[in-house]
Amino acid sequence: MSRIGLRLAYEGTRYSGWQVQPNRPTVQGALADAIRSIDPAADSPRGSSRTDAGVHAVGQVAAFDTAARLEPGEWLAAINARLPKDIAVLEAWRAADDFDPVTAATHKRYRYRIHDAAVRPVLDRRFVWRQPTRLDATAMLSAAGCLVGRHDFSSFEASPSQRLSKVRTIHSLTVTRRDSPEAAGGELHIEVEGDGFLYNMVRIIAGTLAMVGRGRRPLTWVGEVLEARHRPAAGPTAPPQGLVLLSIRLTDTSPRSQPDS
Amino acid sequence: MSRIGLRLAYEGTRYSGWQVQPNRPTVQGALADAIRSIDPAADSPRGSSRTDAGVHAVGQVAAFDTAARLEPGEWLAAINARLPKDIAVLEAWRAADDFDPVTAATHKRYRYRIHDAAVRPVLDRRFVWRQPTRLDATAMLSAAGCLVGRHDFSSFEASPSQRLSKVRTIHSLTVTRRDSPEAAGGELHIEVEGDGFLYNMVRIIAGTLAMVGRGRRPLTWVGEVLEARHRPAAGPTAPPQGLVLLSIRLTDTSPRSQPDS
Repeated sequence: MSRIGLRLAYEGTRYSGWQVQPNRPTVQGALADAIRSIDPAADSPRGSSRTDAGVHAVGQVAAFDTAARLEPGEWLAAINARLPKDIAVLEAWRAADDFDPVTAATHKRYRYRIHDAAVRPVLDRRFVWRQPTRLDATAMLSAAGCLVGRHDFSSFEASPSQRLSKVRTIHSLTVTRRDSPEAAGGELHIEVEGDGFLYNMVRIIAGTLAMVGRGRRPLTWVGEVLEARHRPAAGPTAPPQGLVLLSIRLTDTSPRSQPDS
Repeated sequence: MSRIGLRLAYEGTRYSGWQVQPNRPTVQGALADAIRSIDPAADSPRGSSRTDAGVHAVGQVAAFDTAARLEPGEWLAAINARLPKDIAVLEAWRAADDFDPVTAATHKRYRYRIHDAAVRPVLDRRFVWRQPTRLDATAMLSAAGCLVGRHDFSSFEASPSQRLSKVRTIHSLTVTRRDSPEAAGGELHIEVEGDGFLYNMVRIIAGTLAMVGRGRRPLTWVGEVLEARHRPAAGPTAPPQGLVLLSIRLTDTSPRSQPDS
């Protein structure tokens, strides 16, 4: 038996999220189908992040156990040959026997894209949240400063949740204007890295910062939202298509490559 | 009667190109349908560039005549409300009565995107040409130098063509590596601006430079291709989905805004 680690990219548009659900297309389900068409006895892949319906990823991490005697590079090619076009394995490695994608993830990095030009997005429409008026990126960045660090993020978690601790650490949060011809004049990227995120946390942060960017709330409001530890204090949950899971850093004790056992 | 100018963005994926063809979805046809559902007597919109099937645009220019008494901003909103999601009007203005999008276009700028990572593209798959091995961008840029300037580009025109002169001026041509997490490690942009382009010219330039980037032809080969003035001398026509029409510059005598007449 060996454990294979995978790094994955997917466009979430037509999936009901990562996690398998009956009678619905899911990324985990599509990946499991591809793996089982190679090794019917392989277990279902376990992912680091349970991305929501419509959320994209270029750095999801997953792992599964198999008795098939394929090299990681052979797994990569064989799985990719069986996956639909909107999912791809970017990297495969032989993981440690106790590698767990959930507990091994020490840092996660997400990007939330907001299109804030007067005209609607076309080429990027599957990957951005449209705001019809231009947002104040400088105000959003200033307001976001209070979120960086170790805090109780209860205000930024969709209810209901079974998680015991609402304390997470955000290592960095940037708001950057990325205008380009394709964006027809206006695009903002919110990038956030932390040790983990509560359910919908990045999307609620994006929805909250957008209210500051529109001038509907003062800069100091975000600190009040954080203090409230109560979901209704925050702004709306921004829609899923603007979110992409960029990367996951793994513990040093979960190296990408292990000698053959 | 007034002439309305439009700047347009579209994703070309599901269209048989710009120009109207019977029984096929075209961008010009979709735009004409939207305009005629507002003013049934309006003429068909004329575009600056006849982009091919599958080619995208964020800077196409078009114009049409109408007797309807709508302001340009009202045309923009009304047309956008009737267009499918993969086409949008970015700008509308009252054009001069003799404004012709074809003859008024003095500069056109295109970008060709090549994904050259080992793994296939996912989020950007509708917008890139996939090359399975990494290309040498520096070699491509050096080789492309001889194309800048005023030349007979017969080698870079798909046959057959009715155009009388094959002489065009390329003002600039850059090859830039644009790696990012989304590109999973490898993306090249070829950007080219000129006074006009022959049929398939940018795609043949991309296909030719890719042969140099793969090391299959020496740097000096591109000059020989240009000298040959013969399509078979050049490389293959790169596929349409990598190409986007970025912008079109118009003559000073075709201002974006005219006083109401």
